[in-house]
Formats: sequence, structure tokens, C-alpha cells
Amino acid sequence: MNGILLVSHSKKITDGLKEMIEEMIGTDSKASIYSLGGMEDGRLGTSATKILDGIQECKDFRNIFIFCDIGSAVLSAEVAIEMASEELLKKIMLIDAPLVEGAFTVSVQASVMNSKEDILKDILSYY
Amino acid sequence: MNGILLVSHSKKITDGLKEMIEEMIGTDSKASIYSLGGMEDGRLGTSATKILDGIQECKDFRNIFIFCDIGSAVLSAEVAIEMASEELLKKIMLIDAPLVEGAFTVSVQASVMNSKEDILKDILSYY
Repeated sequence: MNGILLVSHSKKITDGLKEMIEEMIGTDSKASIYSLGGMEDGRLGTSATKILDGIQECKDFRNIFIFCDIGSAVLSAEVAIEMASEELLKKIMLIDAPLVEGAFTVSVQASVMNSKEDILKDILSYY
Repeated sequence: MNGILLVSHSKKITDGLKEMIEEMIGTDSKASIYSLGGMEDGRLGTSATKILDGIQECKDFRNIFIFCDIGSAVLSAEVAIEMASEELLKKIMLIDAPLVEGAFTVSVQASVMNSKEDILKDILSYY
């Protein structure tokens, strides 16, 4: 299984993106999508704790791909990654690609593939 | 005034993006943000009619910038642009940049500037 973690200041953005991706790949694929936008109470902002919880939900997965939009979304993801265990660190990739377009593309690949290299081939050649 | 039109398959994504941008620039700036994601009934999808309505709401503005996410969002925006009057066509720019990151960057510029060239300077050098 592959975990796709979506991080934005807006919970609506990551909820909508999760819906959009799941409409394409289904909910029963090799990729599991996590909407981690907004603060813990749903307000605009990002939360490293919420992102770390998302990472830990994927602890038995093969790969964990994290997508962020702007500024402190990336910082919060980096803080969450620093707090993750060494075992988890090996599975995590923070992807430098646009949130919506990048997560959509990688999720489609991750829904049918296992290898990190195969999953990221398209996106790494594009960005 | 500058119109920023947000187009995605997901209304939640463009609603959330509008909120996120307005938190940064306020609602009383030179940029007015329109959430045009989803079908007319709110389901996942895009609607050229909805986008054309958005374009027409900006008919008295100086510039109209349209941002889309993937695939048929761009097609629907192109259909809407084809249906716009010649007068409006001169004001419209369909921007080839990531939806969230691109619209955020351009909105910040458009909230304090009037000239199309100044507003797009950063984004055109980046993408």
C-alpha cells in the first residue's frame, strides 16, 4: 500500500482533493489518501501534529508520499517528518510538486504500482 | 479591479482556495476571487456555463485571470472563453500554472497592482 498525504492551509482543499482522487482511483486501490489540511480544529493553518498522525496511520505501508501547497505547509510537513521514527523515515518522501496536480498524478500511479521509482517516474521528469 | 477565477473539478477545492486567498489579501482589495469549481449542482466536474457566468461578473474589471487544475477543467475554461464577447476576450488570460500555488501568487500581486505585466511578472518567470 501507498499513503498519499495531502497538506494545505485549507481543510476544504484537501477534503475536495481526496474526493477528486478517490473518484478516479476508487477507495479500494493500492493508494490510500489522507486529507490533512487545516488546523486540528478545522481553521485555516497547518498542524505538524495532524501530519504526524497521518504519517503514523501509514506505518505499515510501503511508501508515504507527502504533498503540500505553500509556505508553512511545507515547514509543518518537515517538522512532522523530523518527529517520525527512523523506520518510518525510510518510507517518507516529501514531493516538490504542485499540490492538486502533483498528488493527482502520483495517486493514479500509486493506485496500481508498488515501486517508488515507477510511481514517481512521470512526476520527476515533469517538475 | 482584477478578477481571479478558480476552476477545478471540486467545488470544495475552489471554495477553500478562495477562503485561503481572501485571508491573505482581504475582501476589500483590487482582486476579487471567484470559486467556480464543480458542476452547477455542486457535484464533481466542471461547467463552462458556470465559468462564463464568472467571466461576465468581471465584465467591468481591468483583467480577468483564470486558473484551472487538470484535464477537462482547462477544456471547460477554453469553451467558456470562446463564448465570451470580443470586448471581454481582451481582458481574459488563462494562466498555465498550478491552481493553488499559481492563483495564490497572482492574487497577492493583483490585490495591489493594476497592470497585467506587473501582476504576472513573478509567475511568468517561474513557470
